[in-house]
Amino acid sequence: MIETPYLLFLGDAPDQLAAKVAQGIRDWRPENAVGQFRLPGCGADVGLADMTLQEARDAGAKTLVIGVANRGGIISQEWKDVLVKALEMDFDLASGLHNLLRDERDLLAAAQTHGGTLHDVRVPTDAYPIANGVKRSGKRVLAVGTDCSVGKMYTALALDNAMRKAGMKSTFRATGQTGILITGHGVPLDAVIADFMAGSVEYLTPDNDDDHWDIIEGQGSLFHVSYSGVTMALIHGGQPDALILSHEPTRTHMRGLPGYTPPSLETLRDVALPLARVANPDCQVAGITVNTQHMSEDESLSYLAGVEARMGLVTIDPFRQGADRLAEVLGSM
Amino acid sequence: MIETPYLLFLGDAPDQLAAKVAQGIRDWRPENAVGQFRLPGCGADVGLADMTLQEARDAGAKTLVIGVANRGGIISQEWKDVLVKALEMDFDLASGLHNLLRDERDLLAAAQTHGGTLHDVRVPTDAYPIANGVKRSGKRVLAVGTDCSVGKMYTALALDNAMRKAGMKSTFRATGQTGILITGHGVPLDAVIADFMAGSVEYLTPDNDDDHWDIIEGQGSLFHVSYSGVTMALIHGGQPDALILSHEPTRTHMRGLPGYTPPSLETLRDVALPLARVANPDCQVAGITVNTQHMSEDESLSYLAGVEARMGLVTIDPFRQGADRLAEVLGSM
Repeated sequence: MIETPYLLFLGDAPDQLAAKVAQGIRDWRPENAVGQFRLPGCGADVGLADMTLQEARDAGAKTLVIGVANRGGIISQEWKDVLVKALEMDFDLASGLHNLLRDERDLLAAAQTHGGTLHDVRVPTDAYPIANGVKRSGKRVLAVGTDCSVGKMYTALALDNAMRKAGMKSTFRATGQTGILITGHGVPLDAVIADFMAGSVEYLTPDNDDDHWDIIEGQGSLFHVSYSGVTMALIHGGQPDALILSHEPTRTHMRGLPGYTPPSLETLRDVALPLARVANPDCQVAGITVNTQHMSEDESLSYLAGVEARMGLVTIDPFRQGADRLAEVLGSM
Repeated sequence: MIETPYLLFLGDAPDQLAAKVAQGIRDWRPENAVGQFRLPGCGADVGLADMTLQEARDAGAKTLVIGVANRGGIISQEWKDVLVKALEMDFDLASGLHNLLRDERDLLAAAQTHGGTLHDVRVPTDAYPIANGVKRSGKRVLAVGTDCSVGKMYTALALDNAMRKAGMKSTFRATGQTGILITGHGVPLDAVIADFMAGSVEYLTPDNDDDHWDIIEGQGSLFHVSYSGVTMALIHGGQPDALILSHEPTRTHMRGLPGYTPPSLETLRDVALPLARVANPDCQVAGITVNTQHMSEDESLSYLAGVEARMGLVTIDPFRQGADRLAEVLGSM
């Protein structure tokens, strides 16, 4: 559990894209961030007030979150000067970088001296159980993709927003480092040991009110040979009541795998649903989300309408349209 | 890579079943073991000459292998006396126990003093890559089960034997601790970090001669919610040319999962084959192995003939019949 609210560290981000973790926090949990901290030359701006460490502390910030990717696989001295100072001022630090904060001797020493916590969210912190498959109370929904990086996290966060807006009970359950930093907790599933993957998902989505929805962040794809085992563990550990099929229609091959063609939405449905029904015989496909960022508005609307007619399922682009229609479908389940 | 030949440590095994790792080595790689070492009161005997440590050294033994399960989750002082002595006599040690040898201070100290290696085969030793899905030369076969513990390792080892006997090129590829101890190398897949599972299977089964078969040890089941992610990674990392369906027909529920009914062989085929074809579009189901240990000889033969007629696939119990018929099918692929 990472303490909120945050000060978002943008460092010397070369451009907006490099600060996408900070942008995600700003977009989805604005109440979790009091401001942003930028170094000279920073090319990113997530639209929050620029603050010094002291101003952020005065505004109540508890944790300095690295909201930017680092360059060259190192944590620079310029960054460290800020991070050590933050620890001296009683901030915790949180990071999803591949380089772990705890592996930096000066950061570790400052944390120990001042009692701060270093949250490396790529590293599991809990001892997860082996999955037991016991049916849990409450409802769960999971997005599965025709490929990796087709918008499953975005789908989940948009759906969570739409459900809350509609007065439904819902919790976004993060399974990747960006999602964990956005919400302050979750399971870094890609770093969990094989035998405990499904158990970690059970642990993340425990018994709940009968009318509560866990919205589980998807990972990988059943059709992506590098990561399909992770997806499989989400489907069986999550025992979803509802699947959402997620798709990016302009992909010519699977991400990082030339020669592998993404499946159709029909194929995804036909493979994923029987597997999901092993853990939850009542599982249904609730709808479809499409990432239409590479299409014009007209093309997008026409594509979505075509898929909806063909598949007989509510089909939306949650970025362009929000996820209200999908929330409505789940509300009736 | 564990150095062979071995001396098999049976310790104070209460019965034969407790020594099943040693028995597996004796059954499948008799050339890897010069003898057995038993403590007073040992209730197991794998049919090798009883040897002292010195006799085994004189016979060329390089590694003392713990071939027995320990009791109560501890490594007893009685065991340690032997293990330390073995290290002093220049043996390496190898173990698949949950308690790691390296976590025992006295064993670690003796290993460091005498230059011996402690092989804890439950722990991955290599830095595995992320799977790239590139097609590899050579052929691969993988057994997938309707449940866990239905005889997939036995199937693979029997098939390896039958293929060698028939003059075919084959290598058993171990993915679990027993298999690793039997052959001296492999990947402890259940302990690999999620993102690297499929990559570790690619690493284990590299390019090979066009007429060489890697016989990959299966794990878990696509229908076992605790471990299905591991099975999925084997299917996609292994990119098998052939699947074998493995079944235990008297199972009333999935192992350790009351309330979960094992699927039919038809359902297993219909789920596993499309998934395997994602990584290898030419994948075929080559045959079926059935563990009929809970049936009489007549019942077994009748059951096997019934499945063979129903499924149109060679169907054998490799324990009762050997795997020659299955080797023949693969030889024609």
